[in-house]
Amino acid sequence: MNLSQLNTPTQLLDKDKLIANITRMQACADRLGVKLRPHLKTLKAARAAQTLIESGASGITVSTLKEAEYFLDHGFKDITYAVGIVPVRLPEVANLMSRGADLTIMTDNLDVARAIANEANLNRTPFKLLIEIDSGDNRGGLQPDSEEILQIGEILASSVAHLEGVLTHAGHSYGVNNAQAIEEIAAQERNAVVQAANRLRTAGYMLNTISVGSTPTGLYAIDLSGVSELRAGVYTVFDMDQQSRGVCKTSEIALSVLTTVIGHNKAASKILLDAGGIALSKDRSADPFRPEVGYGQICTVDGTEIAGLYVTSVSQEHGHVPVRNENDFALFPVGSQLRVLPVHACMTAAAYDYFNVIEDGVVIERWDRVNGW
Amino acid sequence: MNLSQLNTPTQLLDKDKLIANITRMQACADRLGVKLRPHLKTLKAARAAQTLIESGASGITVSTLKEAEYFLDHGFKDITYAVGIVPVRLPEVANLMSRGADLTIMTDNLDVARAIANEANLNRTPFKLLIEIDSGDNRGGLQPDSEEILQIGEILASSVAHLEGVLTHAGHSYGVNNAQAIEEIAAQERNAVVQAANRLRTAGYMLNTISVGSTPTGLYAIDLSGVSELRAGVYTVFDMDQQSRGVCKTSEIALSVLTTVIGHNKAASKILLDAGGIALSKDRSADPFRPEVGYGQICTVDGTEIAGLYVTSVSQEHGHVPVRNENDFALFPVGSQLRVLPVHACMTAAAYDYFNVIEDGVVIERWDRVNGW
Repeated sequence: MNLSQLNTPTQLLDKDKLIANITRMQACADRLGVKLRPHLKTLKAARAAQTLIESGASGITVSTLKEAEYFLDHGFKDITYAVGIVPVRLPEVANLMSRGADLTIMTDNLDVARAIANEANLNRTPFKLLIEIDSGDNRGGLQPDSEEILQIGEILASSVAHLEGVLTHAGHSYGVNNAQAIEEIAAQERNAVVQAANRLRTAGYMLNTISVGSTPTGLYAIDLSGVSELRAGVYTVFDMDQQSRGVCKTSEIALSVLTTVIGHNKAASKILLDAGGIALSKDRSADPFRPEVGYGQICTVDGTEIAGLYVTSVSQEHGHVPVRNENDFALFPVGSQLRVLPVHACMTAAAYDYFNVIEDGVVIERWDRVNGW
Repeated sequence: MNLSQLNTPTQLLDKDKLIANITRMQACADRLGVKLRPHLKTLKAARAAQTLIESGASGITVSTLKEAEYFLDHGFKDITYAVGIVPVRLPEVANLMSRGADLTIMTDNLDVARAIANEANLNRTPFKLLIEIDSGDNRGGLQPDSEEILQIGEILASSVAHLEGVLTHAGHSYGVNNAQAIEEIAAQERNAVVQAANRLRTAGYMLNTISVGSTPTGLYAIDLSGVSELRAGVYTVFDMDQQSRGVCKTSEIALSVLTTVIGHNKAASKILLDAGGIALSKDRSADPFRPEVGYGQICTVDGTEIAGLYVTSVSQEHGHVPVRNENDFALFPVGSQLRVLPVHACMTAAAYDYFNVIEDGVVIERWDRVNGW
């Protein structure tokens, strides 16, 4: 199927670029001597998981229990749910485990650890738990020197639940835009979990998993000794957020939104696209380093970047593209197709139920994905 | 069903508030002597359309052809598709018309008008067309004094397509936050379409529809003489964007996201919710007037506003809520539920397939909605 046959807006996934990106991160993990457990929060597609596993990944990471269920239904069993669990969801976790999932959950909270221990003993469910460590992102996690880390170990020790290890996510690696700064955060990320793991081991706990990960730190880490696995997600497709930080080139971005020019507002010197706030998301995370990018970089329908053309504002179903000069109206007539490289691929992809997978500019497959909770 | 039985994040639609909001706008339209054609881009739910029609609305507005098809499938025939049409979608429009839709489309472009006239004549399809007018928003539309307005009239006159009238959307009414400024924009919105319509009528065209609308201008317009219909959407539920502009009270917001506390990062003085960037959207449109709101206002699980608690940052599946003081950790333990009033209801609602409709704090119905394109 040719792109001109697709209703827009719709999303395109370039298979060759996807494979190249997957290969790049797998090579990093191999070189660093760690397993790669890709985060499917970005693609949420069984066919993507299959491609990742075939390329060397050792399991998957998910961001919702609905994703866990979807991937289990598609035969993927080794799953880490890398968002803090709450007690009310434990029966769901137990159910997925009883259906064959080798599912690992996570917390940073003493009360939740107690609930896990109780529920494990009550129903003889061997929950597998990671303790979340904050390595500087200030999102979830305990400080690596926190007393509570050992207390969670103690709580689990009296139950049939098992303390698998520790996990962190250096989300603050998105806040810098040069290799040296990312390398330093990667070291900080490693050091935080290794410190926490060493404290637990000194206290007598056997740990299987020391898990780190973000796309920038995965690509730039120099030394991950003491770490067992790397998690990352957006590297599979990249986006303008990553490009703005120097982590990828525009030409490596595998996800794009196919859009149609639906209007010319000559008085306001802008082209209007049918890709607006829902189709692109309202993420503005390229702003700190490339504010001109706005909501996305415009490319020709065959994917070639058009310098100086961006979606600078959006309403629900309109993307606004200020023209460089009058000639752009003739170059991009109403009805013509363009592509938009998204700012944040995870957010953009979530607006669609599937990917149009393209090779050499034509659609070769449709990959379904899971959304919602 | 009680809220505690719902998996989170999920969205709640308060039926009493919805009805009150619908009644308020219908009263405005009645007072102004215009028909109300509510914009279903916000709710995209057949049961919402039914409620609106039962309350006096005379037809509906949609933002995608997929919405048009969904509403037609649910028995709603009088539909205006208020986003610029492109020629490649005309067969779809014709198909919906052949299936019984009284569907009106829109353009501001001469080439598109020619394509409509040609396609109409070729297949004997009596397309109904509105000319889009820019009343100051600088999105789509021709200037009211533009020569092209009469040229589009001329192009259609030689075809079986029919020029229904003119339409505008004063989206710039979202850019102000006081009654007088909104009243002025409402007058500007009215004057633009009335001017365009008068020019067309002077040239001999009979027009059925002079259409204006946005939530702020619909609520604040003083005089809509010469206008036939009003379109607006977000007023059905309101949001913090509208609240920040003084258009509604927090207590009138009918849409909220039910969320669970999934973590306490005491070192970073924040509570983490399971409602993040996908569940809330990354819309920041309350920023110009109430930047403290961030991605949403926190309420108790029964919907009472909690002063000073906001979702100030989000990652994909995490909402970050800085605590006011240490006591908030005890007030909102991990596992407890809260609600978030969204910044932009149209964007937030698009992350979900349905609404949990609540009355007196319990779920009484589930309303499905359509998403995508």
